[in-house]
Amino acid sequence: MNDLYQIISSRRDTRHFTAEPVPEKVLEKALKAGHYAPSVGLTDATRYYIIESAEIKSQIKKLFLAYHEKAASATDNTAQKAAYSKLKLEAIEEAPIGMVIAYDRSVLDSFTIGTVGSNEAIKFSAVCAAQNIWLSLTEQGFSMGWVSILNYHDFKAILDIPEHIEPLGYFCIGKPATDYGNQPMLQQLNWRQKATTPNVTKITTGHIIENIEKTTKAPFSESNTDLKQKLQYKIDHKTKPEGALGILEKLALQIGLVFQTELPKILNPHIVVFAADHGIANHGVSAYPQEVTRQMITNFLEGGAAINVFCNQNHIQLEIVDAGVNYDFPTNTKLIHKKVGKGTQSFLHTAAMSATELELCLSYGAEIVNAIYEKGSNCVGFGEMGIGNTSTASVLMSMLTPFSIAECVGKGTGVENEKLDKKIAILSQAISNYNGNTDLDEVLVHFGGFEILQMAGGMLHAFEKNMLILVDGFISSVAFLIAFKKNPKIKANAVFCHCSEEKAHKLLLEYLEVEPVMHLRMRLGEGSGCAVAFPVIQSAVAFLNEMSSFESAGVSNK
Amino acid sequence: MNDLYQIISSRRDTRHFTAEPVPEKVLEKALKAGHYAPSVGLTDATRYYIIESAEIKSQIKKLFLAYHEKAASATDNTAQKAAYSKLKLEAIEEAPIGMVIAYDRSVLDSFTIGTVGSNEAIKFSAVCAAQNIWLSLTEQGFSMGWVSILNYHDFKAILDIPEHIEPLGYFCIGKPATDYGNQPMLQQLNWRQKATTPNVTKITTGHIIENIEKTTKAPFSESNTDLKQKLQYKIDHKTKPEGALGILEKLALQIGLVFQTELPKILNPHIVVFAADHGIANHGVSAYPQEVTRQMITNFLEGGAAINVFCNQNHIQLEIVDAGVNYDFPTNTKLIHKKVGKGTQSFLHTAAMSATELELCLSYGAEIVNAIYEKGSNCVGFGEMGIGNTSTASVLMSMLTPFSIAECVGKGTGVENEKLDKKIAILSQAISNYNGNTDLDEVLVHFGGFEILQMAGGMLHAFEKNMLILVDGFISSVAFLIAFKKNPKIKANAVFCHCSEEKAHKLLLEYLEVEPVMHLRMRLGEGSGCAVAFPVIQSAVAFLNEMSSFESAGVSNK
Repeated sequence: MNDLYQIISSRRDTRHFTAEPVPEKVLEKALKAGHYAPSVGLTDATRYYIIESAEIKSQIKKLFLAYHEKAASATDNTAQKAAYSKLKLEAIEEAPIGMVIAYDRSVLDSFTIGTVGSNEAIKFSAVCAAQNIWLSLTEQGFSMGWVSILNYHDFKAILDIPEHIEPLGYFCIGKPATDYGNQPMLQQLNWRQKATTPNVTKITTGHIIENIEKTTKAPFSESNTDLKQKLQYKIDHKTKPEGALGILEKLALQIGLVFQTELPKILNPHIVVFAADHGIANHGVSAYPQEVTRQMITNFLEGGAAINVFCNQNHIQLEIVDAGVNYDFPTNTKLIHKKVGKGTQSFLHTAAMSATELELCLSYGAEIVNAIYEKGSNCVGFGEMGIGNTSTASVLMSMLTPFSIAECVGKGTGVENEKLDKKIAILSQAISNYNGNTDLDEVLVHFGGFEILQMAGGMLHAFEKNMLILVDGFISSVAFLIAFKKNPKIKANAVFCHCSEEKAHKLLLEYLEVEPVMHLRMRLGEGSGCAVAFPVIQSAVAFLNEMSSFESAGVSNK
Repeated sequence: MNDLYQIISSRRDTRHFTAEPVPEKVLEKALKAGHYAPSVGLTDATRYYIIESAEIKSQIKKLFLAYHEKAASATDNTAQKAAYSKLKLEAIEEAPIGMVIAYDRSVLDSFTIGTVGSNEAIKFSAVCAAQNIWLSLTEQGFSMGWVSILNYHDFKAILDIPEHIEPLGYFCIGKPATDYGNQPMLQQLNWRQKATTPNVTKITTGHIIENIEKTTKAPFSESNTDLKQKLQYKIDHKTKPEGALGILEKLALQIGLVFQTELPKILNPHIVVFAADHGIANHGVSAYPQEVTRQMITNFLEGGAAINVFCNQNHIQLEIVDAGVNYDFPTNTKLIHKKVGKGTQSFLHTAAMSATELELCLSYGAEIVNAIYEKGSNCVGFGEMGIGNTSTASVLMSMLTPFSIAECVGKGTGVENEKLDKKIAILSQAISNYNGNTDLDEVLVHFGGFEILQMAGGMLHAFEKNMLILVDGFISSVAFLIAFKKNPKIKANAVFCHCSEEKAHKLLLEYLEVEPVMHLRMRLGEGSGCAVAFPVIQSAVAFLNEMSSFESAGVSNK
């Protein structure tokens, strides 16, 4: 077979192989075809791993089976589940050769042509290689099956593949036992019919991006002196020594002032977790791989994360926002889709985002909070998730306060010793590479993170709507710092729920001249500090509204 | 040209085109080749957009230029920047046809085969189509250039592409003006040399992941070490960095060990407020008159005190005990009558109580806690009320620890300045008046308080019944100190709910080598610290029982 179209049209995703071995020369020729595939910026980042060991194959088969079962349970109905369960979707143990096609994302550690808009180009080069190999095997009378149904974390562990190498999947290679009637197997089995023609649209006119108008906020307008005195009197005359409820008394006063009443009530409290990816994460500044961001989103949506547990416990509504995760989520989930991009650019050498993206973040954040406000809530907590975001937050803190970058960097999710030194070195480098000025927006464009800026936008809007703002840990506080730089009055509405173990958080709280509610040595993010502290904040409201006064209880005051 | 390898090896990422138009048939054939590319789960999610308008091309060119400049500023050094800036990396305006190859991620809204491990498979199908199109165009004597250097948000906006469609890039299509010497353009220009061979690794042995068995344990059937390891494993494998929940993790481990299970549950929690009067109060050591003790009992019974409000808020049963108040209460209330006497004697000159009264206190305390245990509770908090009882507690602390009386005295309910000096002087006098030895019971008889000793007896019984013991502030901690002196093992069951503002409390917690849950600057007593901290303790139990593990959530551990 040597006609390109015959090869292309007879290429099959093969799940049925004969036992015939694959000659060395066949594989070599196929790999050479793969090597001729495009390589963005000539990075040569595509990697191949060959597996012949039955033992390893059997371990991979187990991984497949676990996820195959998981997939079966995700089908839309029982008929579909039955049909799905009958499908043979791999040939891991039968195919004589197993191959992993992968890409090395560490090439991004130095300058790479073609990745400024999206670093996915590296991955796409590897996929092109996969397609070339497929065509070459087809041309030689062999075939390949692409197995994607795997837990990639365990997959890498079994193969002992380094963290910076990302597999596209497991590829079964051998002599095909069938051509499925010269059609895709899933069509032969009536799972679906392949469309007869490609889906092509001609674009003749374009749509121009509108500039988002920045709303000017109404000034914070009230003279509080009377109310403040009344609230303080009420607090002091509860049946307890003056000041004996410590921070709760301070919170009660603040909340009364925010809601402008002696009988404040927190209504329909919400916590929003903003998630995004960070280009800087490609430089080894985090203890976890970037894919954890999207995995944790799934965990949030499935209710298994810490923030889910604490929100359930304390009757707080939870919302999850994709502010810019490097992953395409299905649109049928409860996820709020406000994706500004698939992660920021690495600010090591270039701006993290554009000015338009910054504006978009601030307005999206405001929209999200506004929707919560419209649901009758007067209290919103701000949490985040994003591998690499302590690095972003540290750099922002250092740029916006007098503290040095070394003072602003901590271990994040668990970076220690040399890795911590490396983190500091990379972030210092990023700051010294920056040529811009100290204008706030310019700094945010260069060093920002999508979730951090959406949080800042959300906080500013919550202040406009006179909501109580619950600030979580270090990253949430950096978002607050940005909001505070834009409008210092916002501090009146903010409750700092806890002081994190991330070392710079204490410095930042001192800089802001605020006192955290709790010190639980937590350093998780997700808004978990807001959720855990929430009952304590409610205790402040409860004592103000429900405790007797000395007068009403007939207790002697001193 | 019709040899697959010739086509594959001569395919170029083309940036130089002639003005020759692309016949309709050529494009059709190429798109058909694209359509034959794999389509995961037969989703047919690949989309093509064709652009011929010069106006749209010019807008896209502007996008490219902005990001091209951004990329130039991200180069590693000036030589590289100069080399980069000379490169021609697109042909947007010259190429007769522009195409966007994209994928529709909304197919993920219903069940899709092959996306359970990673939904990138949809994107990869589109990339395979791109490669097929490239090969087809090459075979027909045409070529393509993949432009990835774009702001994708603006790109989609210009083309009015719906949010759920994700472009791989902009593809320039036309007749190539050069073959770059049959090599990649970047190699011809000496940017880099393409590797001569593909990067292939043979994997012969793998690294085996052990399956961790999850066993449900029967109480007391295994050694504590095993359970401790299992609990720690469970805590460490929740979807969060190790240690990120700080004190909550420590609490979860402790509570699991107390209840001897990996699935602990706090049942029917109670707080008991023990009230009594103190002879020493007659010497002006308190800011409030003694009658406040009985007034506050009435306030507790009527539901108006802080402890009532916080117990209501957090669903804790509250019991009030008359351990020795200088007042006769009516018997028709919910008050638990365990009065040992109408207040202690002043220990300034004589023993506060008799040895019999001490025994009575310890056994009454045990009885009260036993009744709570019999009601199915496994968690009891200890609070107190008693004008003068910080004086009693300070002296007991000083007698039972190495700290001087001055170190053990604080302002109590609000004694300050000269009154505080007087308080220290009186208590020092009481200690120097004491002729007895340091035998624990003798010290307790001389300096004890009825409520403090009932609390100590209650704590010891709670430990015997394997209950979780919630310790409140300074006075409650002195009661614990007594219990601890009688049975040091009790520490395993005790949670120190907060660190009070009463200054000696911090010293005492350090002496006991324990860490309080909260620091709220509270100094009220009544068990209020237990009640306010209780939801935080429940958070520890909740995360242990309800959070997903890395394994169950499919989240990568580091």
